[in-house]
Amino acid sequence: MQTIQWHNGKVRFIDQTKLPQRLVYIETRDVKALWRAIRTLQVRGAPVIGVAVAFGVVLGVRGVAPRASYRDFKRKLDKVIAYLASARPTAINLFWALDRMNKVVGRNKREAVSAIKEALLNEALLMIEEDKRVCRQMAKNGAKFIKDGDTILTHCNAGALATVDYGTALGVLYYAKAQDKRFKVYADETRPLLQGARLTAWELMRHNIDVTVICDNMAASLMQKGKIDKVFVGADRIARNGDAANKIGTYNLAVLAHYHKIPFYVVAPLSSFDFNIKSGREIPIEERPQEEVVRPFGRQIAPRKAKAYNPAFDVTPASLITAIITEDRIFLKRDIQLQQAL
Amino acid sequence: MQTIQWHNGKVRFIDQTKLPQRLVYIETRDVKALWRAIRTLQVRGAPVIGVAVAFGVVLGVRGVAPRASYRDFKRKLDKVIAYLASARPTAINLFWALDRMNKVVGRNKREAVSAIKEALLNEALLMIEEDKRVCRQMAKNGAKFIKDGDTILTHCNAGALATVDYGTALGVLYYAKAQDKRFKVYADETRPLLQGARLTAWELMRHNIDVTVICDNMAASLMQKGKIDKVFVGADRIARNGDAANKIGTYNLAVLAHYHKIPFYVVAPLSSFDFNIKSGREIPIEERPQEEVVRPFGRQIAPRKAKAYNPAFDVTPASLITAIITEDRIFLKRDIQLQQAL
Repeated sequence: MQTIQWHNGKVRFIDQTKLPQRLVYIETRDVKALWRAIRTLQVRGAPVIGVAVAFGVVLGVRGVAPRASYRDFKRKLDKVIAYLASARPTAINLFWALDRMNKVVGRNKREAVSAIKEALLNEALLMIEEDKRVCRQMAKNGAKFIKDGDTILTHCNAGALATVDYGTALGVLYYAKAQDKRFKVYADETRPLLQGARLTAWELMRHNIDVTVICDNMAASLMQKGKIDKVFVGADRIARNGDAANKIGTYNLAVLAHYHKIPFYVVAPLSSFDFNIKSGREIPIEERPQEEVVRPFGRQIAPRKAKAYNPAFDVTPASLITAIITEDRIFLKRDIQLQQAL
Repeated sequence: MQTIQWHNGKVRFIDQTKLPQRLVYIETRDVKALWRAIRTLQVRGAPVIGVAVAFGVVLGVRGVAPRASYRDFKRKLDKVIAYLASARPTAINLFWALDRMNKVVGRNKREAVSAIKEALLNEALLMIEEDKRVCRQMAKNGAKFIKDGDTILTHCNAGALATVDYGTALGVLYYAKAQDKRFKVYADETRPLLQGARLTAWELMRHNIDVTVICDNMAASLMQKGKIDKVFVGADRIARNGDAANKIGTYNLAVLAHYHKIPFYVVAPLSSFDFNIKSGREIPIEERPQEEVVRPFGRQIAPRKAKAYNPAFDVTPASLITAIITEDRIFLKRDIQLQQAL
């Protein structure tokens, strides 16, 4: 199973809004369809959003005539990049991938349009291979922190579906499972869009990992009873000081873990770091439609005119993070704080 | 609007599972129907559960023949009380009310069966009037803590629907509103059964109080941004040391409030205190069906065979409670801790 791939000149991806009931693939060569897929969370998860927009660039410049000038090509490219950049604001991987695609074009500016297009496609295909490798390396680095008998809590979906095929936080669990470690997992359902109940439970069950779904407000009670040993989550953007934006509710867990003296790990590739911002306060937080809260999956739960607030992410300060596990280094809390002091 | 009343020889109550879409009243003289109404949360909220089981006793002994012996009457009474006691385990008000009804019978043991029945009905009717008075007194006591410009966070429903007609934590808000104080409210939706989104939003909107619904995992982020001034919740059972059981997620909020230095108030009548237990560890916590988590309102969200955990309550230690507001005293944290030290 691969969350996204290039297939016969089209992007092919899993429609994550249909899971866990149905495993449906969508194929498209329409950049607008891809943009909507990202906006509506058919494709979601910071790493795979990066790969998706890379292919979005490939699709977006497809129509430029082979004999077009570089200037005309670049004009179209800039439009496509600006368009894709507007899909969602928080995950830095989206901007990182667009920047990378832009640089490929810059490096190939003397080439014919067809050669530039080929270079773009190759770069997007390379990102797929890189993501696979990077996820496995993160998983290997993170699995050291998992011991036999552990009970792990996770939030939202930081799994294969959030990446090309393996995952960040859940990748760590897959790696530990492959090492024959025995552990249990609680998955926060993750309101409003229930990525935990829908996607994480589905993934873990496919891997025969013992998973129990809880409502987001139940984690504290489990921690109070000593039933959680470690928390593993992903990240959508990490600032220079180690502050990490992730799915709404992550900061809640970080405070709870801190209070209960439970280690709190963030697993994310270096492409999720934003070295241009000093702290998490500078991370733009997407606000999504109120309907996701008061009318989930088409069912009105609150009174018709009830107001709701629906931020999609929150920011966990570095001081609450035990370690940030990347494909390269593991940043321990003391490293993060040292860096802040510098 | 009254959540429960005695009407033409029947108990008449609001079916809270139908709100906010429809305001439906159920009338019954069947003690089993009343038991099911409590178990399925058609009637929920500790204080009103107490009143409901009092009427349950009235219904349950209705069929005892007028010329029956006291012993026969008592045998039936004991059965009815044991049956009603099995409806839900956590809210102490249920046991408190049954105990009160039992004592009424004891006090009238020399009377004819018809007179005992009348005394029981009068006691249940008295509980209705007491609840109204007690709620207003708690509200008056609690409203002192609300200032112009406050933003209040509440969890689950501690309102008119949880009592006869006014509420505990929400009663405080109604009282403050009547004093023309200006404040805003965030209501946790309160998974799994969404009493916050369904019932609290509905009640507050009827009172023209500015309310915004959030998912339970969003409260931390609001606190981090300085957007919450105070937390007000109810309680289902309070131990002698001040530990308070309340809807699952309350302990989560208490930890968050503590971390963000936000006052955390519990509003509950003295009938919610269990002086027979020393600490919250002794409070039995109801576990409800897994389906409420993975198949909310009939919609399967997790994979078909996914496991779930569904405790209905958690326990907040007294050390995290700024004050417990009753109809009589206000127990401030230092009082609670003093009491623990004694």
